[in-house]
Amino acid sequence: MVRQFKVLVLVLASWSFSSASRAEAQERGSRRITFPNVPDYLTLKCDLHQHSVFSDGSVWPDIRVEEAVKDGLDAISLTEHLEYQPHREDIPHEDRNRSYELARELARDHDLLVVHGSEITRDMPPGHANAIFIRDANTILQEDAMGAFREAHSQGAFIFWNHPDWVEQAPDGIARLTPLHRQLIDERLLHGIEVVNEQTISEEAFQIALDEGLTVLGTSDIHGLVDWEFDVPGGGHRPITLVFAKERTSEAIREALFAGRTVVWYRNQLIGLPEFVEPLLLASIVVRGARYLEDSKVVEVTIENLSDASFSLRNLGDVSFQRSTDIVTLAPHEETTLGVKGASLGERLELRFEVENALVAPRKHPEIRLETWFDAEVLR
Amino acid sequence: MVRQFKVLVLVLASWSFSSASRAEAQERGSRRITFPNVPDYLTLKCDLHQHSVFSDGSVWPDIRVEEAVKDGLDAISLTEHLEYQPHREDIPHEDRNRSYELARELARDHDLLVVHGSEITRDMPPGHANAIFIRDANTILQEDAMGAFREAHSQGAFIFWNHPDWVEQAPDGIARLTPLHRQLIDERLLHGIEVVNEQTISEEAFQIALDEGLTVLGTSDIHGLVDWEFDVPGGGHRPITLVFAKERTSEAIREALFAGRTVVWYRNQLIGLPEFVEPLLLASIVVRGARYLEDSKVVEVTIENLSDASFSLRNLGDVSFQRSTDIVTLAPHEETTLGVKGASLGERLELRFEVENALVAPRKHPEIRLETWFDAEVLR
Amino acid sequence: MVRQFKVLVLVLASWSFSSASRAEAQERGSRRITFPNVPDYLTLKCDLHQHSVFSDGSVWPDIRVEEAVKDGLDAISLTEHLEYQPHREDIPHEDRNRSYELARELARDHDLLVVHGSEITRDMPPGHANAIFIRDANTILQEDAMGAFREAHSQGAFIFWNHPDWVEQAPDGIARLTPLHRQLIDERLLHGIEVVNEQTISEEAFQIALDEGLTVLGTSDIHGLVDWEFDVPGGGHRPITLVFAKERTSEAIREALFAGRTVVWYRNQLIGLPEFVEPLLLASIVVRGARYLEDSKVVEVTIENLSDASFSLRNLGDVSFQRSTDIVTLAPHEETTLGVKGASLGERLELRFEVENALVAPRKHPEIRLETWFDAEVLR
Amino acid sequence: MVRQFKVLVLVLASWSFSSASRAEAQERGSRRITFPNVPDYLTLKCDLHQHSVFSDGSVWPDIRVEEAVKDGLDAISLTEHLEYQPHREDIPHEDRNRSYELARELARDHDLLVVHGSEITRDMPPGHANAIFIRDANTILQEDAMGAFREAHSQGAFIFWNHPDWVEQAPDGIARLTPLHRQLIDERLLHGIEVVNEQTISEEAFQIALDEGLTVLGTSDIHGLVDWEFDVPGGGHRPITLVFAKERTSEAIREALFAGRTVVWYRNQLIGLPEFVEPLLLASIVVRGARYLEDSKVVEVTIENLSDASFSLRNLGDVSFQRSTDIVTLAPHEETTLGVKGASLGERLELRFEVENALVAPRKHPEIRLETWFDAEVLR
Repeated sequence: MVRQFKVLVLVLASWSFSSASRAEAQERGSRRITFPNVPDYLTLKCDLHQHSVFSDGSVWPDIRVEEAVKDGLDAISLTEHLEYQPHREDIPHEDRNRSYELARELARDHDLLVVHGSEITRDMPPGHANAIFIRDANTILQEDAMGAFREAHSQGAFIFWNHPDWVEQAPDGIARLTPLHRQLIDERLLHGIEVVNEQTISEEAFQIALDEGLTVLGTSDIHGLVDWEFDVPGGGHRPITLVFAKERTSEAIREALFAGRTVVWYRNQLIGLPEFVEPLLLASIVVRGARYLEDSKVVEVTIENLSDASFSLRNLGDVSFQRSTDIVTLAPHEETTLGVKGASLGERLELRFEVENALVAPRKHPEIRLETWFDAEVLR
Repeated sequence: MVRQFKVLVLVLASWSFSSASRAEAQERGSRRITFPNVPDYLTLKCDLHQHSVFSDGSVWPDIRVEEAVKDGLDAISLTEHLEYQPHREDIPHEDRNRSYELARELARDHDLLVVHGSEITRDMPPGHANAIFIRDANTILQEDAMGAFREAHSQGAFIFWNHPDWVEQAPDGIARLTPLHRQLIDERLLHGIEVVNEQTISEEAFQIALDEGLTVLGTSDIHGLVDWEFDVPGGGHRPITLVFAKERTSEAIREALFAGRTVVWYRNQLIGLPEFVEPLLLASIVVRGARYLEDSKVVEVTIENLSDASFSLRNLGDVSFQRSTDIVTLAPHEETTLGVKGASLGERLELRFEVENALVAPRKHPEIRLETWFDAEVLR
Repeated sequence: MVRQFKVLVLVLASWSFSSASRAEAQERGSRRITFPNVPDYLTLKCDLHQHSVFSDGSVWPDIRVEEAVKDGLDAISLTEHLEYQPHREDIPHEDRNRSYELARELARDHDLLVVHGSEITRDMPPGHANAIFIRDANTILQEDAMGAFREAHSQGAFIFWNHPDWVEQAPDGIARLTPLHRQLIDERLLHGIEVVNEQTISEEAFQIALDEGLTVLGTSDIHGLVDWEFDVPGGGHRPITLVFAKERTSEAIREALFAGRTVVWYRNQLIGLPEFVEPLLLASIVVRGARYLEDSKVVEVTIENLSDASFSLRNLGDVSFQRSTDIVTLAPHEETTLGVKGASLGERLELRFEVENALVAPRKHPEIRLETWFDAEVLR
Repeated sequence: MVRQFKVLVLVLASWSFSSASRAEAQERGSRRITFPNVPDYLTLKCDLHQHSVFSDGSVWPDIRVEEAVKDGLDAISLTEHLEYQPHREDIPHEDRNRSYELARELARDHDLLVVHGSEITRDMPPGHANAIFIRDANTILQEDAMGAFREAHSQGAFIFWNHPDWVEQAPDGIARLTPLHRQLIDERLLHGIEVVNEQTISEEAFQIALDEGLTVLGTSDIHGLVDWEFDVPGGGHRPITLVFAKERTSEAIREALFAGRTVVWYRNQLIGLPEFVEPLLLASIVVRGARYLEDSKVVEVTIENLSDASFSLRNLGDVSFQRSTDIVTLAPHEETTLGVKGASLGERLELRFEVENALVAPRKHPEIRLETWFDAEVLR
């Protein structure tokens, strides 16, 4: 027989998990994308690159709004191509703001932010770029590419480079900075880069983001239906950018994007700078309790996953686990209990993991530490 | 527009995949456990530690036979405790061979091998051990533990140490070799060790296997129902030992166990010596084709997973992938196509991966190389 | 635009649905069998014909207890064959009460009633019969079949005829009363009959129950595993007898069985006397609300199904439905809203249905009426 | 022990089931709607009432084509409102044929017929009507409703009354013929009627079809997404019209519609005239074999369901079934074996069923007879 002691558990990083994030976790039956907030910031789910029939997409803006509501997004942008209007014969509208205006109106009944944006659509270089938080798309439509960037900038736009790895524009699918991009960055006309676009990811784009201080973005670039493109009924999800914002407003999202506070959510991977990935991991993977089993000298540690990610954690610590190899799996929104063996018990137990499904640089996976304190009396 | 060239593909390790293994792959809708054969050997699925009402289990041997048939096993052993007979009041049979004889008779209508075995059930040391391929369980039931091992040995038994990490017998759940175990090994009375037993895995037992040259085993040690204990309807599986045997006979399994040719299949992990894990990985993960897309300079490589494992592969090579981070996932019995970027193309393309869900030593994951040749003309 | 009036709804048969039954409904994710209580009685879920290794079953009694707990049963009986002991060589126990005693002991930690019973196992006539609520199985084991029935009767047993349609004993699978059965009934030695046994149903047995005033029973007669025999993981369920008892005790079940208060639950069918089927239907199918849509003159009626049955209701009333033919389907534990057209509106709306998946005599399906009152003001 | 005789089985109605229809049956894993052909005719799956952004729908025509391909339809029609163009501000196209022309072009790469059609959109009477197989939609757009019908007619159009039960136009949701409709019918300007539209069914419309000899139609009238509106990922399907055509061409569909050869497929119900419903049922429900079990005098009859319908069959014959009440369920594309009891065996066995999920008049369900012949020698 095994006597079991309940022990007092303190989690070092005692960030408060709002009851809201728990409620979100319980919505997991639905397709709503769910990640917890992080200390000091709300985690806003944004898809800032989409198309409708107003450029080369296949749906009216109302479908984009409904998809976003079903996915539980906080913000979207319909970034129609300024220079590419294949439906022009049927939709001859000269006003490039029209798609935004319709979407904003349609979103009025929902709790969804619509960001005013447009896609500057050029040959490489500079390729395609999204300007968002603009005031007037029409004036950005200019002969000269640099003129377009400057006009967007003068409107206060956040501008990011789209799919720099697109094989139509990037020979061999490798994202590479050109002198023109260098100029755009130097003139502070380019602020972000798509590391993930639709189905693709670019390690090279990620490295450019790190080297140049560009904000990391992931977008669906959806033209058809989100459900079909990303197999939502089969459990898939569109790529989005998690934006860590001070409040749930367009202006706060803009501030966060300029400050680089993002993590991309792509095919069960979390991709971004360590200073943003790590708080998100620690908000998502939470020690719920620990107890010392005196007879077996095993410590049972219960960990809860508050996120949509299925985590794969590689054990880096001195301990081993009764029911798991060094690769520990945490299913989305579930609890798991680890039987920890070999802990040199003081008042503190620390678990160290490499998070295999998170990236803080190309091929670099972050390390997290989960700590637990025991009440001294228990161990006496 | 992208022109696409079909290229001739040769896979270096041109092991033949029998059409049988493909047929097996197509059975994937069922609960049958499926792994491909390896060069020179059949991959036999064995669960060599189980109980029935004839010791402390809860079912008649017919249920054990039916479970094994449903799981597609090749061989089982009902290893009743020699010294622990809690149902003795109701089942006073003195013949410890009875369970085996019933199972063998019940298996006659099925394509299932039943191995004659018994569990020597002692306090630690030496703890519990299974003797299989015995002739008579009754004579193994002796006062002296060493006598039991010697009698089993004299019958030609393969003997393995059960759950050396069991907290009832191993303080703190850490498997440790005692002088008595040392003596058993030295006298060639102990040939294998359970690295996996029921729900638990022991890194320490794995290390002992490596250090002492003991055969690596994983067993269900089932007492109740396999379906319940391992959540088979929910997609779970019992732990088994994959045995690489020259033919599908009891004698060939015995030979393979003494030769140490095993890999354990436990919670989506493949665990064993590198010389057996690696051929199994290369038989399971097969390049089905490659084509060079001239315009984009991307090579599309199609890989098929012929096994029940959901593989997690970490890219170690120089290339990157269009639609995946460095962690590539291969679903069981499915094909996936990788867009390979950055390959320095000669006639040969090599992909290098660390297989995260395989272990060749505690915390050591094997590396595999998948190679493809191109027809020189294509690249001219 | 359609103005909508909330109307006061009164359900005629204002039986109180305990919050317990609603809680049960919410357990629908599990395999627990769930039916609501009826006026004056608890609805107890009973499987009163099962076997273990103590006759010709394949499991120890603990598995029977665990299966019952998983299925949410209230009561079971392990009715081992008195005269058929194929495991006698291994289990030579002479005490025919042993299986009951073990099960009772094993059930102690669960909220499960174990009824003491035995199967009198004879050639036809009289065939097999279960005697339950006995005191001592051993004295029922007699040379003379009538002696066995009389002894069971003298112990206060409720006795029912097992599988009267069994092709091994009933030529052509048709249940037929013999003179011996007539005698048993006349002497009040036979009180019930299995209309459902394992996989089979017998319309002829149902007719005999009606003609002779025998209690209607359905049982699993399980020998192997409930999960396999009735495909529980695939959504199947074992046949059980719903017993309408005054309290949750063995004695109350016995009283209810003698009083004939039962309904059989078999492959989504509810089978029994109209006086018991109909209250169960009315407790299961509940009008949750109605509202009159003034502009369209349609009445929206919301119906909730509080049971595990998937109901198929055939419209017998004067109204028609906007979104359904005359065959209305109610999924288990879900709400559905019917748009009722053509109602001649007074203060009362009555829906009339034949319940296709319920039987109150061979090929006779019961009719139910669901009534709703409106607040007079709303209709002015 | 039961000896079993294989008997020669002849099915009376020996319609040939093309191997194509069996192949289709095996596609049942997909969302493709599948029904077998009937004697003399192909069973074509048609959705002849749909909208795109060219009237008040939310998608470009390419999505309509892709939905149809995914659903395995043979023919669609994009029937934009002639008189209702809410997107006119953005899509000012005056050519009412534009939607058809785009869809026809987009369908070119698929095996999909696109029928030229338009919705005449008027207040009641006559309400809305679809004219399909037209030559020019523009000339149908006329001030006078009768003029529109006459112009469509002069183009050879098949014209049907849309959603006659629509609560916006039909007070109380009851379809009623007005003098204007009478005139249209008398002048042969109205040929069909929607008994099913989107989510609704109208028994009254069905009765009008029967009384007036109008062709029975069911359509999705989709404006948004088929997947969302009809819960396709959850197993739902859009309403369609099965058209029994001599070949797979637009002209053959037109001929069949004028001849009234249709059955509607709506929420698992098959609705139409008995002369078309019954052949479809007999092509869908097929006796695959029968064998007489001599000892038990039971006849095992194996029935295969070649369709997407989940059939509910009510036994009307003299026999009873071992494993089913009088309500027999046949899952889509599965086989079931009935143990038939009480058959007075000659050379012929006939099963009689009412098909609960088919309608040949309001509240009237068709009867089918399934016959089997035995080889005389077997019964000797």
